[in-house]
Amino acid sequence: MNKLNEQICEVCRVGAPQVTDEEIAWLKPQVPEWKIVKNDGIKKLTRTYSFANFREAINFTQKVGALAEEQGHHPALLTEWGKVTVTWWTHKIRGLHRNDFIMAAKTDLLI
Amino acid sequence: MNKLNEQICEVCRVGAPQVTDEEIAWLKPQVPEWKIVKNDGIKKLTRTYSFANFREAINFTQKVGALAEEQGHHPALLTEWGKVTVTWWTHKIRGLHRNDFIMAAKTDLLI
Repeated sequence: MNKLNEQICEVCRVGAPQVTDEEIAWLKPQVPEWKIVKNDGIKKLTRTYSFANFREAINFTQKVGALAEEQGHHPALLTEWGKVTVTWWTHKIRGLHRNDFIMAAKTDLLI
Repeated sequence: MNKLNEQICEVCRVGAPQVTDEEIAWLKPQVPEWKIVKNDGIKKLTRTYSFANFREAINFTQKVGALAEEQGHHPALLTEWGKVTVTWWTHKIRGLHRNDFIMAAKTDLLI
């Protein structure tokens, strides 16, 4: 099996299964810096990256945006002075799909 | 007096006064689409702009980022598929400064 960050997002449709607890137990250790949070009942993967200033932060936002466009899967990106918080989840299934873990792993490669 | 969007941010130091209710009554109507919200006791100015897709949203994020760098005053920018939420406040005074209204007015010019 390829490493998570080398995998490609599959097309995700409404009704696709969310990751199970067993899958999370296997996937989560591969993105150790990420946290699973629950907002409005929706599980999401989130990580805040730190930078020296605003310019570096927004440059990183651009890189994540380009990755999102390339993979056809889009995060929420909160850009602030010296930090960017990236949050992945799958709107269509209102929760976490394997794709989100793949995208988290790919995001980690951008720093 | 120049229009708000033609004004320039002044250097803001710790201890500078927050805008008064009287000033807000004069400034707020000049940025009618913006809302004043309170997070963790800090008053902020926020507006969500809608776009056709992620690419347009992140392009707008870049424009606001360039404006922020130019003026030396930085917002929080939440970029999502089809929308960007821009939030201005002044960290140093933990609230709203006249600069934030100037930046809101300038942000409106970018769309």
